[in-house]
Amino acid sequence: MNLKRPLILVVNDDGIHAPGIRALIEVAKELGEVTVVAPNKPQSGMGHAITLDSTLHLHKEKIAGVTAYSCSGTPADCVKIAVNKILDRKPDLIVSGINHGSNSSINVIYSGTMSAALEGALENIPSIGFSLLSHSIDADFTASQHYAKKIITQILSTNKNKNLCLNVNIPNLSTALISGLKVCRQANGNWEENYDERTDPMGRTYYWLTGEFILDDDGRDTDEWALRNNYVSVVPVQPDLTAHKLLTDIKHLENE
Amino acid sequence: MNLKRPLILVVNDDGIHAPGIRALIEVAKELGEVTVVAPNKPQSGMGHAITLDSTLHLHKEKIAGVTAYSCSGTPADCVKIAVNKILDRKPDLIVSGINHGSNSSINVIYSGTMSAALEGALENIPSIGFSLLSHSIDADFTASQHYAKKIITQILSTNKNKNLCLNVNIPNLSTALISGLKVCRQANGNWEENYDERTDPMGRTYYWLTGEFILDDDGRDTDEWALRNNYVSVVPVQPDLTAHKLLTDIKHLENE
Repeated sequence: MNLKRPLILVVNDDGIHAPGIRALIEVAKELGEVTVVAPNKPQSGMGHAITLDSTLHLHKEKIAGVTAYSCSGTPADCVKIAVNKILDRKPDLIVSGINHGSNSSINVIYSGTMSAALEGALENIPSIGFSLLSHSIDADFTASQHYAKKIITQILSTNKNKNLCLNVNIPNLSTALISGLKVCRQANGNWEENYDERTDPMGRTYYWLTGEFILDDDGRDTDEWALRNNYVSVVPVQPDLTAHKLLTDIKHLENE
Repeated sequence: MNLKRPLILVVNDDGIHAPGIRALIEVAKELGEVTVVAPNKPQSGMGHAITLDSTLHLHKEKIAGVTAYSCSGTPADCVKIAVNKILDRKPDLIVSGINHGSNSSINVIYSGTMSAALEGALENIPSIGFSLLSHSIDADFTASQHYAKKIITQILSTNKNKNLCLNVNIPNLSTALISGLKVCRQANGNWEENYDERTDPMGRTYYWLTGEFILDDDGRDTDEWALRNNYVSVVPVQPDLTAHKLLTDIKHLENE
């Protein structure tokens, strides 16, 4: 019998001082020993970026009563340096978030929150990314904490898959209004971009990216369906991008 | 019959002045009308990062005789702004690279080159990322150009799949020594990281990421097998990260 409490690494992409990571630390503290390693500035939309051409710096501090390191790198850097340099044993679980904003559907590929989780799974550590469907700095994380606690407890007690990686998204509703939890697949969808063109005081043109998410999937087994029907969505994710169904279709390229 | 030459958008992640993009422009010019939109500085390891919290700037110039725009953003930003702002018609093909260094196996998820290609496929434009297995600034792109020309010609003339996205890696060999082309899946593998710890002149600790790639796959149908046996590897990729096989395994989470 293992008498040690599980070691939980907490990371995020909104930066170490975001309210969302504090909410997740509070949950993790109840369930295990916690260390935090998180970016020293917001890193939203960083995808699976890593720092190759520059150095990394760490700064030790306390957040919500636990040992924390702010890191000058990306979310994926935080996981790599935590596991390979900072921690003296392998974490039993990595949790990432709670992100301020959705990482459902195609957002997963742009998401720093989920790249940190995927990086954890690549290091053979079960990992979960949590995201709340609200960008508000004053967002209420109560329901997110309720579901994070349920899921973390389950994974710590039953999961045997060291590469398990979950993308959990939570509707911006009170716990009472959430219908429950759905295991689902990533919905097909994409952003239709717009560039807002402006002129700076020196007369130079610059652009802001704006856009609208277009759902291109009417399946009832998707994360988007779950979220639009007030469920927490749980998508298991993995890092193989191969389009296995196309391997035969393009085989002819070998013969040209 | 369409008398217009195909429009080819050329992007990369090593920056608009890298030798690799010039090699790719030379090939693309033979096969169509070319516009270049590429980062104004190296963006290796940027994954699928996009610029959300900052503005984008473009600078028009000429590279290898074609119209080019250097962009202050990431490789994925370059594709988005090219398609949605710069170009007056939809490109028939997007080519990304030629990257200085491999994007086989797990490197695909960290790769700016491949994130640009994947972004193209998300915009319903067939897209191909090319990478040469050499980081040398003096790398010889002759064999890469030979295979890029073959593949681009084939895709332009036969492909009907607007979401097609190919990850092409080329061994660092002369054309004569390359055995041919293999359509394959992404090999399982990962980086074993090491952090080189140093002290700066002010006495502060900093870190450089180093590491070694560990192949964890003995399949003969993988990109790593192909490259180690002197083949050009062609992996079709797609943006659905769902671990479809795990959907049943974790269904029990719904009932807790």
